[in-house]
Amino acid sequence: MEVKILQNALKANDSIAIENERKLKERKIFSVNMMSSPGSGKTTILEETIRKLGDTVKIAVIEGDVKTTMDADRLVKFGIPVVQINTETFGSSCHLDANMVSKGLDSIMEEKFDLLFVENVGNLVCPAGYKLGTCRNVVVLSVTEGEDKPPKYPLIFRNSDLLLINKTDLLPYLDFDMKKLEKSVREIKVDMEIFHLSAKSGEGLEQWIDWLKKGIKEARNGS
Amino acid sequence: MEVKILQNALKANDSIAIENERKLKERKIFSVNMMSSPGSGKTTILEETIRKLGDTVKIAVIEGDVKTTMDADRLVKFGIPVVQINTETFGSSCHLDANMVSKGLDSIMEEKFDLLFVENVGNLVCPAGYKLGTCRNVVVLSVTEGEDKPPKYPLIFRNSDLLLINKTDLLPYLDFDMKKLEKSVREIKVDMEIFHLSAKSGEGLEQWIDWLKKGIKEARNGS
Repeated sequence: MEVKILQNALKANDSIAIENERKLKERKIFSVNMMSSPGSGKTTILEETIRKLGDTVKIAVIEGDVKTTMDADRLVKFGIPVVQINTETFGSSCHLDANMVSKGLDSIMEEKFDLLFVENVGNLVCPAGYKLGTCRNVVVLSVTEGEDKPPKYPLIFRNSDLLLINKTDLLPYLDFDMKKLEKSVREIKVDMEIFHLSAKSGEGLEQWIDWLKKGIKEARNGS
Repeated sequence: MEVKILQNALKANDSIAIENERKLKERKIFSVNMMSSPGSGKTTILEETIRKLGDTVKIAVIEGDVKTTMDADRLVKFGIPVVQINTETFGSSCHLDANMVSKGLDSIMEEKFDLLFVENVGNLVCPAGYKLGTCRNVVVLSVTEGEDKPPKYPLIFRNSDLLLINKTDLLPYLDFDMKKLEKSVREIKVDMEIFHLSAKSGEGLEQWIDWLKKGIKEARNGS
């Protein structure tokens, strides 16, 4: 019985996700769902991305957090459309779902933008189970979290298109086995794209920006 | 209707938690539920604790993970009783609940031990909502996660007795505002005990060991 309720809930989520996807596609918007543990550096990556890309591309953000508008406050300073979703008020606080994103979209669809970031709740488990209707899923892993995370949290890696290995500026101070990490990620998702990133040193930012530009171009061409 | 189901589920969890608490109290075992984000260093703290305390105190561990026995494998090397719970097989993978801990207890209760660690799933949201029946809740926060976490994830801080601020050896390489963190924690829980810890430099380990010894003594005296 319980399983049936869960399946229906997931089915309902998927049908709203398809509707989100349709809306975004119709508007030729490239959309990216950013997932990670708390404190992996998602918001800082977005800040750097807006700095580098915000002059040439119109960007909007749907910001997911259990509570507070702290992350949204950091991004709204750039003068872009940002909507904060506090998951607590929706009753299932540990992840964004397609319905929350749909509500978020409704509130910023009057704005004109080409690139939408959905910053998920900091959580390496629950967000992976909910399709939002975005073009791409990106998982961010900070090197400070250790190289053992992919086999322990496989679903979020399996359901992502790109892995950003972040805070690489801290590698000299850590016992971190990059080869082991990349090997274990490929065992879960053989064709995972992997970029090394550091908002502090600037490593990998260009590669990330190019990846976004390619996606924006594809969305514009309707592919 | 859904809320009613949820309330019943939580009520069921609480009654199993009370039963766990009774069992542990009867056996005069001091028990600690360790909660944190993925990669905050919980298992490394346990390794150091077993090294420092394992000769004089009998320790057991219930290890919670979505998948794999990687953390349990690290601890079983010390020759202590360890039981791995893969939450995935219980259908709600993002946290431990009292029923899982009860099953874990059943499988190690034949062993004789005075200190039980329950290492929760790496997740700063969901574990906070589930009482397990342990004597204490401890939340671990790595300084690499940033000082903005308490207001964004208040429940886990509100429901913990002790905050271990971990990986302080990395502070020289980070922009981390310790005063701001501690202030925001006290705003959520005014009497939170806070220790600074580094498994690498050894900072705070003695204070943590003393805290455990005090708890073990109290449990032994039935207080």
